[in-house]
Amino acid sequence: MKKILVFLAALAIGLSANAQQALWGGPSVESPVINPDGTVTFRYQAPKAVKVEVTGDFLPTQKMEVEFGGNKMTYDAPGVRELKEGPMGVWEYTTDFPVAPDMYTYTFRVDGLTVIDANNVFVNRDIASITSVLLVPQEGARSDLYAIHDVPHGTVSKVWYHSDKQGINRRLTVYTPAGYETSKAKYPVLYVLHGIGGDEDAWVTQGRATQILDNLIARGEAKPMIVVFTNGNISQEAAPLENSTGYTRPTMQLPQTMEGSFETAFPEIVKFIDGRYRTIAKKQSRAVCGLSMGGFHTLYLSLNYPQLFNYSGMFSAAIGVSDPSVSPIYQDFDAKLAKYFAGKPALLWIGCGVTDFLYQANKDFMKKLDENGFPYTYMETDGGHIWKNWRIYLSEFVPLLFK
Amino acid sequence: MKKILVFLAALAIGLSANAQQALWGGPSVESPVINPDGTVTFRYQAPKAVKVEVTGDFLPTQKMEVEFGGNKMTYDAPGVRELKEGPMGVWEYTTDFPVAPDMYTYTFRVDGLTVIDANNVFVNRDIASITSVLLVPQEGARSDLYAIHDVPHGTVSKVWYHSDKQGINRRLTVYTPAGYETSKAKYPVLYVLHGIGGDEDAWVTQGRATQILDNLIARGEAKPMIVVFTNGNISQEAAPLENSTGYTRPTMQLPQTMEGSFETAFPEIVKFIDGRYRTIAKKQSRAVCGLSMGGFHTLYLSLNYPQLFNYSGMFSAAIGVSDPSVSPIYQDFDAKLAKYFAGKPALLWIGCGVTDFLYQANKDFMKKLDENGFPYTYMETDGGHIWKNWRIYLSEFVPLLFK
Repeated sequence: MKKILVFLAALAIGLSANAQQALWGGPSVESPVINPDGTVTFRYQAPKAVKVEVTGDFLPTQKMEVEFGGNKMTYDAPGVRELKEGPMGVWEYTTDFPVAPDMYTYTFRVDGLTVIDANNVFVNRDIASITSVLLVPQEGARSDLYAIHDVPHGTVSKVWYHSDKQGINRRLTVYTPAGYETSKAKYPVLYVLHGIGGDEDAWVTQGRATQILDNLIARGEAKPMIVVFTNGNISQEAAPLENSTGYTRPTMQLPQTMEGSFETAFPEIVKFIDGRYRTIAKKQSRAVCGLSMGGFHTLYLSLNYPQLFNYSGMFSAAIGVSDPSVSPIYQDFDAKLAKYFAGKPALLWIGCGVTDFLYQANKDFMKKLDENGFPYTYMETDGGHIWKNWRIYLSEFVPLLFK
Repeated sequence: MKKILVFLAALAIGLSANAQQALWGGPSVESPVINPDGTVTFRYQAPKAVKVEVTGDFLPTQKMEVEFGGNKMTYDAPGVRELKEGPMGVWEYTTDFPVAPDMYTYTFRVDGLTVIDANNVFVNRDIASITSVLLVPQEGARSDLYAIHDVPHGTVSKVWYHSDKQGINRRLTVYTPAGYETSKAKYPVLYVLHGIGGDEDAWVTQGRATQILDNLIARGEAKPMIVVFTNGNISQEAAPLENSTGYTRPTMQLPQTMEGSFETAFPEIVKFIDGRYRTIAKKQSRAVCGLSMGGFHTLYLSLNYPQLFNYSGMFSAAIGVSDPSVSPIYQDFDAKLAKYFAGKPALLWIGCGVTDFLYQANKDFMKKLDENGFPYTYMETDGGHIWKNWRIYLSEFVPLLFK
């Protein structure tokens, strides 16, 4: 044992000073800490700082108003709290409320600079933002679905397919449920689409989708299914750092989003998945859902391929932003809508938060559905255009599939 | 198009102020920038800072000496450079040398605080350290292997198996080469082991192993093979945040490392892989390699299971730290060594850097091999106990396998 300790010491010394502190001496500061009373303590060591703040979606939001193009828009800005300086330059803030079980992201602001928590290795990239992760699980709470439990786990694979339409190799994230590899059964397939700026990683990291699937299936609340997370930026091979194009910076201004190309090319993904995996390759066993831009894509995939999908889920969908002049995909909306419902889809599911800037657009869409007597299921939640809601919507949508 | 722009604007406004800056206005500061002359510019916006520095393995190291337990040890500390403040509080440093093509990690120090590059979304976790990534590829350079090219890509999967020995589910990273899924062929298997504190993610993130494999196979320089990245912390289910135990902080002081349990239980991983994948399930088609603790594990796996592995790669291996009193795995070293070589393994490959604190231990081991006339291949590199070397060793080892 002594030899190993010397080895460890030598290793720690041999590593960089940064690493050394965290590895050998243990982290000098513990943060975040979920306290027994449910409050959470955040700490950051910054001896020379004048002001240290924490901001994140665990804090109550504050209403903000901005003007854009002559229109006033209100939105929920994340709350901000000041930390107080203690011994050794360690700043600290403890919430004055128990933090509700959920998954959150947060950052510190040190004299105005946004930084992640230096003592929390759980970081998340969402589009171009790197944030620290706070996961507060609790038995019986909804967020328990987001935690990793000692249940059979599915396999999560990064899989490449060739897009004939785009002439490039493109990456998918594919979830195969526990038991897939040892079974000979065929499985239904759910396609899950991200929002603008996102990629094939988004639902797995920020969305906790594979944990939600593992847990719902283990509880018997969802059918075992294959889940495919596509990259909806059709001009892009894969997420940043997974591209052959090198340092492509995440951006919301990628070419060829929401102009029909993704929807036009989508059948080649379905064909690839049906060829590669043991799927039940028919409408009855195929579902699609997505958030924001992915909800927009979901709508137009459903309308343009009524023979493909039996279940559709629109989460905070970007409704009302399509431009019929850019693609046939967006033309003849009313006729396609009628044809879609004539095909008697098992489920059109809509979820939206009351403060979402797309709330009214979703209400308008549902009014149209109502006027035509087209059936759908609607879930309304608090809050706006946020991951918290999209995790809820996925958790609600998945149990309804393939029954 | 106008509608989409309004949607984007509303989305940007709806997002947090942090995200908004990076997403909508584009990053206010570009960093890092690889300049046409090969120098690299780093920038960090910190208007209130007094001193901003950058440190990382792209800088020449500086010799440092420390005393530990009465022994003086020298090591290569990463270099540090000061940035200069320019307009808008944007600090900047440009290297006065072309940065050699390679993959690097770096951090800034703002008035002593270690922070990642706020304008670089490419972050890496290595054990408990979060750092920013600088990848400098160049055609014809070795680092070209670390870049993603437009070649057929293998599938990278996170796969769980049940450890009967430990009574827990455990996670592996498994690489199946391009063509595996559409072929009926059987493939050889390489097991790749991480260092202390690492996990089944380490070789894929910091080690660029799947890029190295994709590129070597595409060039015809390596045989298509299945590669299994194990988690060598036998008491651990999986990497942090992938555990059912919740917020387990990465540490080098995990129980049950280097005390025989991992090596004892290893055959159950081989059995799982041979059962799950189309492998050539025999010694001739099985290899193992690892870095540091993983090199230690490689040595004892090779010695204790001479019938399992035909190729073994020890990268900066932690030689000389085993304790025979803790496990039979570490007993009868000389006899096992003789038996191992009597089995005529195809390759024992050793790599070490001249400034590695384990250099002498590796030299001593090779002296023993020489004295016994046991054959091996040795590669000596500059530098010490660093990922740069481990990527080189993997790139050199893989082409030698299964010929």
